[in-house]
Amino acid sequence: MLEVTPRTRLTRKPDRQVTDRRMLHEILDAGIVAHIALCADGQPMVLPVGYGRDGERLLIHGSTGAGLLRRAAAGAQVAVVVTLLDGLVYARSMFDSSMNYRSAVVFGQTTALSGDAKLDALRLISERLMPGRWSEVRPPKPKELAATLVLELPLDEASVKIRTGPPSEDHPDQEDPLAWSGVLPLRAVADEAIAAPNVRPGVATPPSIDAARARVAAIDGTQL
Amino acid sequence: MLEVTPRTRLTRKPDRQVTDRRMLHEILDAGIVAHIALCADGQPMVLPVGYGRDGERLLIHGSTGAGLLRRAAAGAQVAVVVTLLDGLVYARSMFDSSMNYRSAVVFGQTTALSGDAKLDALRLISERLMPGRWSEVRPPKPKELAATLVLELPLDEASVKIRTGPPSEDHPDQEDPLAWSGVLPLRAVADEAIAAPNVRPGVATPPSIDAARARVAAIDGTQL
Repeated sequence: MLEVTPRTRLTRKPDRQVTDRRMLHEILDAGIVAHIALCADGQPMVLPVGYGRDGERLLIHGSTGAGLLRRAAAGAQVAVVVTLLDGLVYARSMFDSSMNYRSAVVFGQTTALSGDAKLDALRLISERLMPGRWSEVRPPKPKELAATLVLELPLDEASVKIRTGPPSEDHPDQEDPLAWSGVLPLRAVADEAIAAPNVRPGVATPPSIDAARARVAAIDGTQL
Repeated sequence: MLEVTPRTRLTRKPDRQVTDRRMLHEILDAGIVAHIALCADGQPMVLPVGYGRDGERLLIHGSTGAGLLRRAAAGAQVAVVVTLLDGLVYARSMFDSSMNYRSAVVFGQTTALSGDAKLDALRLISERLMPGRWSEVRPPKPKELAATLVLELPLDEASVKIRTGPPSEDHPDQEDPLAWSGVLPLRAVADEAIAAPNVRPGVATPPSIDAARARVAAIDGTQL
């Protein structure tokens, strides 16, 4: 269960608040891009990042050159959000029209990983984003590891919001005999892989591309 | 041209910084969901929102019940981000592997709209999210308008980051004769619309559903 804290309590549509930790995991495992927000000298900053979940921690990676991530590594409070857009909800009024979505926000402080813990975390993130690719390519070089920041954020405090299903409408609107209402489902798809110009003739698309296709299909929604 | 300010200057990969205002517009027009971040008593907060662009302003709508939006309406500095994920970039090393994306962050203070300006803005947002739907349904009621917050954010200060094309790799990696590298393109698609259970038999899917399908196709990427 996710404990509801002052910063995770929904002030609006509390019926959309979900405290099942499995749903948090499901959303985090489906998404590819997260947005990390923090306050820098009182000003909000936000950045899209690749990430992966491992048990009860979120692993975020980026460049040591990214100022926002350095601030996070230095202990700034962060809010990390992953949103999956599952559909457009067409009610018989604009007011009741909505979107179907699954969204998770994790609050807390990150820790920068180093040594074996950092390498393990990079492998875990890689397996989430591009399953199987890690073992198809050469290992990271020390200077590459040095240029990479890997942050760990415990899943201690998180809010999960989900809207699903058909429109919820006011009674009179529902009685309009001519009006259509419903949902337009959205999802992400992967198209054919495009080889880089320098790939030698005859080099086949690797198994990790098929794995990524399955991984994208598993999102069952988009992050639109 | 977008002026580069201390908070929009990229500290990392400055080659990905784009100052063409048309690109800002293109990204904002493609996206469906934005994330709005702000600082509340020094703590970062972030929320997914529906939005639309109109000229040099971003229009965000939400409920008057959303604490974050009320803080934004009261003048808090915000950062609003829209990210489109266009593909997974498979290099011959994990370090050079990446994602193709288009991302825009707009900084500033929002103004809450009222009266005709509010109604006009709601129509504009609606036309961006569900083109044509506004005129298929009844007009908003006064109590619905009262429960809706519409914020305007000028596109004065914004940073745009784009990564596109094949992997950029270190020279030795490129010479591996057996290794594949390339891009797995991603995009969002709309599936068949699902009518709500209370739609009368014979009521056809409205033209706005086809318009939304075209609108999703125009994203040419996902927001994953």
